[in-house]
Amino acid sequence: MRSSTSGTLFAVVMAGGAGTRFWPLSRRRRPKQLLPLLEGRSLLAATVDRLAPLVPSERTWIVTVADVAEAVRAEVPQIPADNVLVEPVGRDTAACVGWAVWRLARSNPDATMVMVPADHVIHDSREFRKVLGAAATCAARRGGLVTLGIKPTRPETGFGYLQFGTEVERVEGIPIHRVSRFVEKPDRATAESYLAAGSFRWNAGIFAWTVAAMESAIREHLPELATRLDAMLSAATTVGEHEAIRVHYPGLPRISVDFGVMEKASTVWGVAAEFGWSDIGSWLGLAEVLPKGEAGVGVGNVLALDSSDCVLVSEGPLLTVLGARDLVVVATSDAVLVVPKERAQQVKALVDRLHELGRDELL
Amino acid sequence: MRSSTSGTLFAVVMAGGAGTRFWPLSRRRRPKQLLPLLEGRSLLAATVDRLAPLVPSERTWIVTVADVAEAVRAEVPQIPADNVLVEPVGRDTAACVGWAVWRLARSNPDATMVMVPADHVIHDSREFRKVLGAAATCAARRGGLVTLGIKPTRPETGFGYLQFGTEVERVEGIPIHRVSRFVEKPDRATAESYLAAGSFRWNAGIFAWTVAAMESAIREHLPELATRLDAMLSAATTVGEHEAIRVHYPGLPRISVDFGVMEKASTVWGVAAEFGWSDIGSWLGLAEVLPKGEAGVGVGNVLALDSSDCVLVSEGPLLTVLGARDLVVVATSDAVLVVPKERAQQVKALVDRLHELGRDELL
Repeated sequence: MRSSTSGTLFAVVMAGGAGTRFWPLSRRRRPKQLLPLLEGRSLLAATVDRLAPLVPSERTWIVTVADVAEAVRAEVPQIPADNVLVEPVGRDTAACVGWAVWRLARSNPDATMVMVPADHVIHDSREFRKVLGAAATCAARRGGLVTLGIKPTRPETGFGYLQFGTEVERVEGIPIHRVSRFVEKPDRATAESYLAAGSFRWNAGIFAWTVAAMESAIREHLPELATRLDAMLSAATTVGEHEAIRVHYPGLPRISVDFGVMEKASTVWGVAAEFGWSDIGSWLGLAEVLPKGEAGVGVGNVLALDSSDCVLVSEGPLLTVLGARDLVVVATSDAVLVVPKERAQQVKALVDRLHELGRDELL
Repeated sequence: MRSSTSGTLFAVVMAGGAGTRFWPLSRRRRPKQLLPLLEGRSLLAATVDRLAPLVPSERTWIVTVADVAEAVRAEVPQIPADNVLVEPVGRDTAACVGWAVWRLARSNPDATMVMVPADHVIHDSREFRKVLGAAATCAARRGGLVTLGIKPTRPETGFGYLQFGTEVERVEGIPIHRVSRFVEKPDRATAESYLAAGSFRWNAGIFAWTVAAMESAIREHLPELATRLDAMLSAATTVGEHEAIRVHYPGLPRISVDFGVMEKASTVWGVAAEFGWSDIGSWLGLAEVLPKGEAGVGVGNVLALDSSDCVLVSEGPLLTVLGARDLVVVATSDAVLVVPKERAQQVKALVDRLHELGRDELL
């Protein structure tokens, strides 16, 4: 067993998402993690700041995608340019993890890495760092793969779940369990049974591992990805990294790290996490984390009269609402969205239709 | 009794309204009558064109108000500049009628005048001219005041009503009645009884009279207005009309021609009118006169999915709606309005609130 101080801790922030669920505020070149949703700050900037006391900026890496790389760099200028890995095209999380692990393994073979999405909201930053630190310690000590399990607060059907086995130890007071099962997004009845059972946790996509352990796991469970990463890193030494990435990255297999590696790994440790978490996957999710006024949630240039339980956002025209209930309305200078709350998760249907109509300038 | 050909027929179009009920499309400087609501044309232009076969442009006058005078002139350039009477401030319809009558009486004492609002929708223009021609003939022959009574199609509580007495004659086949009573906006039960009675008609504010008859009626029922109009017209001969209007017009009493004159006159003739009429007093009224698609009424830059019975208007950003029912949404480049249909007549509350907040640049 390695000691908890055997490797240096790095953070990798996954900032490649292009989500359409916040359209028209989010666009191809301004995805969710760059939106100034929380007190005028982006989720990406908040994520990097939240990590800073645990992992300083020179050991924080960001993986993003070409379309938004420039905006990402501008949003977190404290991150060294060399730490921003730019995918020419997105290839899901296994490729993104693989690239970061392969690259880090060359310079810091003893490194431990935490992997954090750029677009989540965390209420209690101090507790978050405590849990993430415990996960990193567990990963370094045990040499396995570690995932955070968020205690469910509702029978959510939009997330994958982890089933925790018995507690194996506590690290700095945080319970560590063996993960006995990964389960895909459940139906409502199953989600309710998970909530009742008490042993199930939301899979938040927040991980810790040593680069050595993850490299081994990828070689074992995704050998094609490993081979292609070897070739890519090897090419980098001759043609330069930029050119190697341009040529090789698009050929990496498209699979998630959950499905491709975590679910197949023989030993995964789960860290019990409770720090006020939301992935704000839609306008409704945003409503849950923002302060509520009389009319619901209002952000920006908004005037509501005699309205309730709405989500009202404008960064362009003055948005006025009279006598509305349970509506989501989002206004920008070139597009306005109106949708009842109960349909707010279907915004993609509009985005798809706009694409069909050739209105890509609005996407 | 005068012959029907004794006086020349003039038309006066009342285009002074500053209505807030179509905010944010309508603004202080672009009131309802100037909005391109019908196939891209304004109600004012449509009104003038509709009158043209009955009254040519050189005998069509427009009364408007300073804020919108320039836009009015640009909208109907065929009307001679001298025919556009510009109120420095609005003083309701009696002052507006009085000014037109006093001015016309100086040059054309035998004139008959039809008075038509600039912001109504008329479905059957030919029938409209036939009815208006009959009203003018009736006014010229009988020397009294004539009003059009629209056959009600619903128990509307937003209009005043006329009660028609027995038919006294037909002019070109159009029935003429004595008006036995003017009634203010009724409550719902009363409106229903009017609809059932059959003898009640909507007061549409469309009139005919000889200038001599209306001058007499104003002198009898609104002597203060008459005295001030005398002074104003007299001043015009010495200081010029523009200066006389600037000084005297704001002092004219503020009262409607219905309440100040028509309801008090001993003899008013009512012409039975059925030509498909709407005053489109709100977004709902507009919805009734525009063609309907799957989602309801859509005007301009609009994309609706799985929505019904809405009124969707944009002249700015793309307005997208998903899963909405019975909503009014109006988007412009600087303001967006969202209101359930059932509250659409209360838009003034928002406009008032914006004024209180000092956001007059949006009004």
